[in-house]
Amino acid sequence: MVLEHAVLEVLPGQEAAFEEAFATAKALISAAAGFRSLRLSRCVEEPNRYLLLVEWEQLEDHTVGFRSSTAYQEWRNLLHHFYDPPPTVTHYEDRVTIR
Amino acid sequence: MVLEHAVLEVLPGQEAAFEEAFATAKALISAAAGFRSLRLSRCVEEPNRYLLLVEWEQLEDHTVGFRSSTAYQEWRNLLHHFYDPPPTVTHYEDRVTIR
Repeated sequence: MVLEHAVLEVLPGQEAAFEEAFATAKALISAAAGFRSLRLSRCVEEPNRYLLLVEWEQLEDHTVGFRSSTAYQEWRNLLHHFYDPPPTVTHYEDRVTIR
Repeated sequence: MVLEHAVLEVLPGQEAAFEEAFATAKALISAAAGFRSLRLSRCVEEPNRYLLLVEWEQLEDHTVGFRSSTAYQEWRNLLHHFYDPPPTVTHYEDRVTIR
């Protein structure tokens, strides 16, 4: 399992429109091969900042499979115009978990 | 529930020592009032970068309860000398979850 991580800086004042677009967009990513889970959270200290965490079966399910899909083009069209600057997307592997 | 978020830049070459110290330190945070879960993950693209995610019952369990405890002083002593620069810690509230 690999965890996709992105901090999303949404244009101030566009938070409600972003969340509405995301409600549509989430079906595009959750249907992708290798998708496991998703969490979109909003920052307490900076309300126009969001955290996107997506679990994938393996790295390539995101970087190759999803990103080369037509669904990803729709995802970009729905969401990317809300971001300034464009987000940096990275991936993480769990080392310690306590539940 | 609130999610604590910190990206930890560990001094290059100190990753193994950091993970060893974290194996001790995790008991300090998981015993805190309001602690719910913890996840420490390592970045695929930048191997000296870690992501710390901690779920708390409420914001003040972290910002007031844990940070004013003697356990937090031990936590700092064990871990903070590995970081450069010091991490920025923020908090998030879930907006969308798909599991």
